Amino acid sequence: MRIGLLTGGGDCPGLNAAIRAVVKRGTAEHGVSIMGFHNGWQGVIDGDAQPMSREDVSGILVAGGTMLGTARCHPHKVEGGIEAVIETAQSENLDALICIGGDGTLRAASKVHNAGVPVIGIPKTIDNDVVGTDSSIGFDTAVSIATEAIDRLHSTAESHNRVMVVELMGRHAGWIAVAAGVAGGADIILAPERPFDIDDIVKKIRHRHRHRNFSIVAVAEGAVPAEGSSWKPSETLDAKGNPIAGQIGAQITQAIEEATGFATRLTVLGYTQRGGVPTPTDRLLATRFGVAAIDAAVEGNTGVFTALRGEQVQMRPFKVMAGKTKFVSDDLLDTAIGL
Amino acid sequence: MRIGLLTGGGDCPGLNAAIRAVVKRGTAEHGVSIMGFHNGWQGVIDGDAQPMSREDVSGILVAGGTMLGTARCHPHKVEGGIEAVIETAQSENLDALICIGGDGTLRAASKVHNAGVPVIGIPKTIDNDVVGTDSSIGFDTAVSIATEAIDRLHSTAESHNRVMVVELMGRHAGWIAVAAGVAGGADIILAPERPFDIDDIVKKIRHRHRHRNFSIVAVAEGAVPAEGSSWKPSETLDAKGNPIAGQIGAQITQAIEEATGFATRLTVLGYTQRGGVPTPTDRLLATRFGVAAIDAAVEGNTGVFTALRGEQVQMRPFKVMAGKTKFVSDDLLDTAIGL
Amino acid sequence: MRIGLLTGGGDCPGLNAAIRAVVKRGTAEHGVSIMGFHNGWQGVIDGDAQPMSREDVSGILVAGGTMLGTARCHPHKVEGGIEAVIETAQSENLDALICIGGDGTLRAASKVHNAGVPVIGIPKTIDNDVVGTDSSIGFDTAVSIATEAIDRLHSTAESHNRVMVVELMGRHAGWIAVAAGVAGGADIILAPERPFDIDDIVKKIRHRHRHRNFSIVAVAEGAVPAEGSSWKPSETLDAKGNPIAGQIGAQITQAIEEATGFATRLTVLGYTQRGGVPTPTDRLLATRFGVAAIDAAVEGNTGVFTALRGEQVQMRPFKVMAGKTKFVSDDLLDTAIGL
Amino acid sequence: MRIGLLTGGGDCPGLNAAIRAVVKRGTAEHGVSIMGFHNGWQGVIDGDAQPMSREDVSGILVAGGTMLGTARCHPHKVEGGIEAVIETAQSENLDALICIGGDGTLRAASKVHNAGVPVIGIPKTIDNDVVGTDSSIGFDTAVSIATEAIDRLHSTAESHNRVMVVELMGRHAGWIAVAAGVAGGADIILAPERPFDIDDIVKKIRHRHRHRNFSIVAVAEGAVPAEGSSWKPSETLDAKGNPIAGQIGAQITQAIEEATGFATRLTVLGYTQRGGVPTPTDRLLATRFGVAAIDAAVEGNTGVFTALRGEQVQMRPFKVMAGKTKFVSDDLLDTAIGL
Repeated sequence: MRIGLLTGGGDCPGLNAAIRAVVKRGTAEHGVSIMGFHNGWQGVIDGDAQPMSREDVSGILVAGGTMLGTARCHPHKVEGGIEAVIETAQSENLDALICIGGDGTLRAASKVHNAGVPVIGIPKTIDNDVVGTDSSIGFDTAVSIATEAIDRLHSTAESHNRVMVVELMGRHAGWIAVAAGVAGGADIILAPERPFDIDDIVKKIRHRHRHRNFSIVAVAEGAVPAEGSSWKPSETLDAKGNPIAGQIGAQITQAIEEATGFATRLTVLGYTQRGGVPTPTDRLLATRFGVAAIDAAVEGNTGVFTALRGEQVQMRPFKVMAGKTKFVSDDLLDTAIGL
Repeated sequence: MRIGLLTGGGDCPGLNAAIRAVVKRGTAEHGVSIMGFHNGWQGVIDGDAQPMSREDVSGILVAGGTMLGTARCHPHKVEGGIEAVIETAQSENLDALICIGGDGTLRAASKVHNAGVPVIGIPKTIDNDVVGTDSSIGFDTAVSIATEAIDRLHSTAESHNRVMVVELMGRHAGWIAVAAGVAGGADIILAPERPFDIDDIVKKIRHRHRHRNFSIVAVAEGAVPAEGSSWKPSETLDAKGNPIAGQIGAQITQAIEEATGFATRLTVLGYTQRGGVPTPTDRLLATRFGVAAIDAAVEGNTGVFTALRGEQVQMRPFKVMAGKTKFVSDDLLDTAIGL
Repeated sequence: MRIGLLTGGGDCPGLNAAIRAVVKRGTAEHGVSIMGFHNGWQGVIDGDAQPMSREDVSGILVAGGTMLGTARCHPHKVEGGIEAVIETAQSENLDALICIGGDGTLRAASKVHNAGVPVIGIPKTIDNDVVGTDSSIGFDTAVSIATEAIDRLHSTAESHNRVMVVELMGRHAGWIAVAAGVAGGADIILAPERPFDIDDIVKKIRHRHRHRNFSIVAVAEGAVPAEGSSWKPSETLDAKGNPIAGQIGAQITQAIEEATGFATRLTVLGYTQRGGVPTPTDRLLATRFGVAAIDAAVEGNTGVFTALRGEQVQMRPFKVMAGKTKFVSDDLLDTAIGL
Repeated sequence: MRIGLLTGGGDCPGLNAAIRAVVKRGTAEHGVSIMGFHNGWQGVIDGDAQPMSREDVSGILVAGGTMLGTARCHPHKVEGGIEAVIETAQSENLDALICIGGDGTLRAASKVHNAGVPVIGIPKTIDNDVVGTDSSIGFDTAVSIATEAIDRLHSTAESHNRVMVVELMGRHAGWIAVAAGVAGGADIILAPERPFDIDDIVKKIRHRHRHRNFSIVAVAEGAVPAEGSSWKPSETLDAKGNPIAGQIGAQITQAIEEATGFATRLTVLGYTQRGGVPTPTDRLLATRFGVAAIDAAVEGNTGVFTALRGEQVQMRPFKVMAGKTKFVSDDLLDTAIGL
């Protein structure tokens, strides 16, 4: 058997751990050949691949990024893309193609599968917004990095009697802001799931500063003002509709300082959230996903993706996640906001 | 309302985060009084408690250990213990008692509940062996510490062509050894769930050393030899039946060195696995458990414990966990061993 | 004896460790009273102080920030400031005043000393630009945080074929950028000590990208273009002449992207560089400085500051540092740039 | 020119950073050839070497261990060893040999140099006991790891009212125990430089436990009882005179528990102290040493070693360090013990 492997979309910690698991398990346990495609779907379209051995993946368990490279290319959005993928699958004699990616990569994976190339997905995204799995590769590490930053901001906020605003990733769903905000003890957490009213924030900060002299505000980049709220930020999205780093954070920072009179400072974590050594939890998840994916490939169980459900890793059909976004639950939002 | 709170059994990272959540949510959201008992069940027996305010728990989110102290005392094993607990509950006018603890503490909690004092449990144990919840407070941090140690051993093992044995906690269940072993890329993982044969280990190491010059062996302190295996360690338990730190690791280390001729060295992580700053994941879990427990207490939902199930925290009856041990699943053991 | 103690200027990791050392050594070894002033010089002017005991400093060794608070207030720049300090010193019966601070705080300390209040300085600054000491409190931690960020940017830069620009603190001297840049393996390091020419940077990046597909650029916030260079950034300073966070970084990022055509992204570390748990090296330095300062105070050796020189902590007269800035040496700059 | 390079003795974090600096600076700046010998002096004796390019050292800056391997082999203790080294130097046409190592490796380096092969030394040792340099590669990382362990032990010691003994490396000199003990806030620090009396320790712990309920004791493996002290440990050295891991710690633990009646527990850090990712401080030091060494080699300045003196890296003659051990100064010991 010959199994293809790619990583697509934005990189994140744990991709290499998943690659390693697929290759080690595939070659040692199942005796199959693994072809690694470079730069995500682009490599499949171009037929740019390398055979992968145990030696190739030696030592990459702890490495951030992806040894295969990645790109934000989707075959169904490229003229003749799907056809090129089919052609490569045939010329490379692939029995299945394992795609490690987020939202966009897995949507492409589903379309490619429907076009006749057997595909298996492994969800990765620091945003944790893939439906059907408790967690995706990269999320735990991103939360860990964001929480460490909030920990550090605490001491300087307190020493200088400041409001500290920290802008975190999370365009559609506020998982990082909520998880890191709770873990780091942020006083206010703004997630896209709960549109905010700046007046409430100001009131809460003023109230808090009667007995404490500082506050921490964790803001997801996708945070939006509530309908009818008095204050609205000016444009925070770029031409493609993506959040511009630092935009929403900067405007909220200014609004808080003006309304409260408290010195308010902004920190934008940016790309440090998606790089570097994965946490043990992400390495374990990535390894389990990689093992489950190659096992499924060998069994011919395709059109599915690896999903963590409780303590189990299960294979679930693509349609479970199709076109949906996993939002932070009301319960967890209440926990985050009620503390 | 008045709610009691205690931490029992061995300490672990995240206890203070749970205490903080109970106190903050209880006082601010529900307006109840929280009485914190010192040194676990001992404090309840002695009536040794303090009222707890938001100020008391300020800044403890990241602190290891427990601000309430803890002890390995079980009221049902102490003459008149249960009666003393009932008396304290009455004299303190407690509507419920929230017990943060492992196996032993929660077994006591169940007995106290059956004796008429309404109790709610919050599971904590670095061993992760409490049945009915995906995870317990302290486990993620212990895995994180153990993995970091394995990461460090890798480089010195490789530079010196050595076999490195690391003994980890886990008396009945091998969760830390399996999770940290997989996350750290250990070559051999020994858990109580899979009795080992030293001959297999030696064979695997010899085979591996044909192309790599080092190996990492992760050993749970409760690892046991398979029935009928040629080699058995001499006594590794103390008079109370608890593993003596370093015993099983030392004997396996010696056996490997003698059989393979490769220089083999032992590291015993010991108490560093249960102390210090909790991971963000543990802080989040502890906070969610604390919030769920105080909410249940206020609703009068007692005789239950907080359980993580997938993405949800649920309240489950004590009988779910009663007298059982959560073992590592065959699936996960296969993943661990097959890589 | 009664000794005053204050922390002034921006906070940084290690201040609490120094406070703890002064208090523990002062009370236990020397039997003197320590008065801690709140919010830097402001507290001395206002006579706002607390007596400090061993219990007060228990557990603060690892805490970021400063338990005494701090402020950017200089008595010689305040109407009647010096007089108020003298008055407080008399009314509080101070035999000496220990001032933990950077550039500005220690300049004030020198002036206060000359006005008749015996003063001892302890240098702290993440910028490491105090003359006369090998290192100042906070620098090692700032380098550690900045290096970890660069480590993380490496993997995402490589996976996405990007140029990553990271803006670090360092207004007059480039110590953080140079130390973290070398430690993190940055390809280009821009420090105020070596004015840059954007054309050289572009050329170096283009050259590098013939065989590697990514680059890391570490920029001190005080980096300046060389005289006569073709490209100059627009204004990067605020009305007070302080660098505006993100300004120089953003403009360099844009200039590189436009000139090279390579996707170029900016990260601004900001306040996370000055908060949180100090490194062991900073805790040790702060403790040694605190011990040396209180010992000097008891001996009546004032008008001096603690200085690390090689392996020794020495007391040096204020005039050694007066009005000067410690720049990165040519040697170290050559090491940084030549790799 | 052709320059040889080896790493000898025990491995430690930062060796790869030094290797990388020698190779990058040597090839790019000076255009010389670098030959890397495998497994320390053994590789020179055997003529086992590889040419090293920039590509070979790409990505190793953060890697623990040594890519060249190492061994505890000293040519002057091997029959015909020096002669074999001379022969290899001639057959490989070496203009100089850069030796990265501790005490033993550098003593050999000096002897080889005197025998006619031009040698340059780079000191590395987690023990920090090389004379003539403020610090050696690996020390800062070892202190960092040891301090983190002490931080973790604090919380569990406090929660359980325990005495925690931690045994750290340091056979002749107590640098790690003193630096990590001070940085971690250990209550008692035992270094070889200050022979201990168990009665004093017991007294100090008893005194402390009147107001605090726990203590941390940091013990260097080379700690020795004072002459005439009532209690002496039984043999703690192996046949070669090296400390047996855990021996001195275990005996002190038992003695404290018996004399005080307080529950006392031992942690032995062992090999984790010498592995893994180097701290930024060690990476910077290693890089500066590597650059200075290759620059000296190219200039023909041999028979010297790289030394950190204050903020400068200087080249010093081998005789400065010959046959001596750098002990912790009285000043620093007083700081450690007086807090």
